[in-house]
Amino acid sequence: MTRRPGAFAAARLAVGPVDEAARGATTARLDRLAKPRGSLGRLEVLAAQLAAIAGTTPPPLPRPAAVAVFAADHGVHAQGVTPWPQKVTAAMVAVLAGGGAAINVLARQAGASVLVVDVGVATEVEAATGLLDRRVRPGTADLSVEPAMTLADATAALDVGAEVAGRLVEDGARCLVTGEMGIANTTASAALVAAFTGRPPVEVTGRGTGIDDDTLARKVAAVERGLAHTDLTAGALPVLASVGGLEIAALAGYLVGGAAARVPVVVDGLIAGAALLVAAALEPEVLGFCVAGHRSPEPGARATLEHLGLEPVLDLGLRLGEGTGACLALPVLEAAARIVAEMATLDDVGVSSG
Amino acid sequence: MTRRPGAFAAARLAVGPVDEAARGATTARLDRLAKPRGSLGRLEVLAAQLAAIAGTTPPPLPRPAAVAVFAADHGVHAQGVTPWPQKVTAAMVAVLAGGGAAINVLARQAGASVLVVDVGVATEVEAATGLLDRRVRPGTADLSVEPAMTLADATAALDVGAEVAGRLVEDGARCLVTGEMGIANTTASAALVAAFTGRPPVEVTGRGTGIDDDTLARKVAAVERGLAHTDLTAGALPVLASVGGLEIAALAGYLVGGAAARVPVVVDGLIAGAALLVAAALEPEVLGFCVAGHRSPEPGARATLEHLGLEPVLDLGLRLGEGTGACLALPVLEAAARIVAEMATLDDVGVSSG
Repeated sequence: MTRRPGAFAAARLAVGPVDEAARGATTARLDRLAKPRGSLGRLEVLAAQLAAIAGTTPPPLPRPAAVAVFAADHGVHAQGVTPWPQKVTAAMVAVLAGGGAAINVLARQAGASVLVVDVGVATEVEAATGLLDRRVRPGTADLSVEPAMTLADATAALDVGAEVAGRLVEDGARCLVTGEMGIANTTASAALVAAFTGRPPVEVTGRGTGIDDDTLARKVAAVERGLAHTDLTAGALPVLASVGGLEIAALAGYLVGGAAARVPVVVDGLIAGAALLVAAALEPEVLGFCVAGHRSPEPGARATLEHLGLEPVLDLGLRLGEGTGACLALPVLEAAARIVAEMATLDDVGVSSG
Repeated sequence: MTRRPGAFAAARLAVGPVDEAARGATTARLDRLAKPRGSLGRLEVLAAQLAAIAGTTPPPLPRPAAVAVFAADHGVHAQGVTPWPQKVTAAMVAVLAGGGAAINVLARQAGASVLVVDVGVATEVEAATGLLDRRVRPGTADLSVEPAMTLADATAALDVGAEVAGRLVEDGARCLVTGEMGIANTTASAALVAAFTGRPPVEVTGRGTGIDDDTLARKVAAVERGLAHTDLTAGALPVLASVGGLEIAALAGYLVGGAAARVPVVVDGLIAGAALLVAAALEPEVLGFCVAGHRSPEPGARATLEHLGLEPVLDLGLRLGEGTGACLALPVLEAAARIVAEMATLDDVGVSSG
């Protein structure tokens, strides 16, 4: 399979609004089920959203789900923003392809597939089953000193994401989960969050998987320098190219691709959130197809959720990435869909609520 | 099968502390897995607790799970504390036995069984598969004017719960989930929460499945009158008998029975929380075997979690009861156990964390 140029542009054109009539019909049905009105809380809201996405009620079950883990490296790693060596990205790609990473464990339990996509790992990666080679370039340039990518590279990565989303849905996925791996990618994500929410870097740059005060100071400074050479009024694509990452661009394309295919996309933490800021800036209707899976403790993730008005399903203190938080939310989504289809009605109980 | 007198007393004697060595060994193993230390947040804490409960690491999978739904009626219904007629308890027992209630849907998805136990429904209930007749008496007396139960009735209900827990584990359950159904049981629960946490009734009495201001005022007044005739220094059993309910007593016995059988017990919202206050007062070691499944929006549930120092797994705004919130937490518990057993280690990745 070769990369399809224009996959992102085609997906973006195909995105339409969710179906508000299906949402309303679902809410009406939920009110007739054998329970007090509204008593299933978030399950009811999610059920209505799943129906709005699919355009039918009861909504189809969001299974099987598919997780795409986009992997890439970051030139800003050279600024000492993380204690992990860059080669960990490639090493983790091998673990992911071998089924031993946290997301593999969680996906197996959920009955979801995992596809690892190399969009821009900097070092050698062994070919493996479940690993798709879509390397646009071997890592980004250092966003703290120059644009991370050209517009052409960013577009190519958007195309990869849109292509993968389309392919997974063609292969039968009825729900997509965002996943990523890339040492230093919380730095690029913080820069995007600052750019799209307007918040100062110091507020949205966090400790990622765990860094000390000096490293955090270098990370904030790198984000600040990146934003200083970025024209924030130039539009979402140039900003993405200037301070983003290849896997983040691919995730943005994946989100748009999922919306174009009219399936729910469960969004993980900080990195996927940064991608959603980009995707929603390019095509606001994408938001209606997204479910925030998990509230990451990273300050940038919280700023993103607030900015987009999203309430996450879970809040379990996960800060690993890979798609783990989003994957854990899948059973809640499935429960939401099942409730609409399988519950008895108040008529069956023979009473009406007061 | 006949009720086993003394099942609760026997279970209470059998409860021991959880295994701190297994907890420590699990934490040590989690620190060697292919992820930054602590980055799986609550999953890591839950995994260590599951190991402490079982006394082995990796912890056994908490499946299959079993949900016991204890059903009973409440004399305080006469005070107009809910818009739902009392006969809804019996009607919902039939729906539960028939598989059409919300908890049936969620349990099926989770691969969990549902056993409905009539501990004290006031009106006629048709015999059905999956329904166990353990009626102690047809509903409690009105707690706002007299003790809800005799000590003998409360003890009999505790025995039912302990017996059911033991039986479910004997039949293969590796995780127990609390469930209940009983119109007006949030009133009895609020009274117990006030009694055991020392908070004033007005702070811990909520709107249950949805009541107006006048009904709420009657509910608070009923709780206050109940506490006025209760000797709060008399011990947990007399307080339970004075303002509790038959299904709440059974749940307290079930919690102790689960701890005695050394399986995790996932605790649902307000009513199960009230039962846990009773169980923990009778046998504090029970707490180590319990996982709070869901943060109910009911003020009494929040007061209970704070009092017991429990952090719930989910916070989805559910206020239905039946065990729905706890059942939704099962996949998170399973994920916690799987992580320990199935993930690659940092040695496999060939790096050490900085």
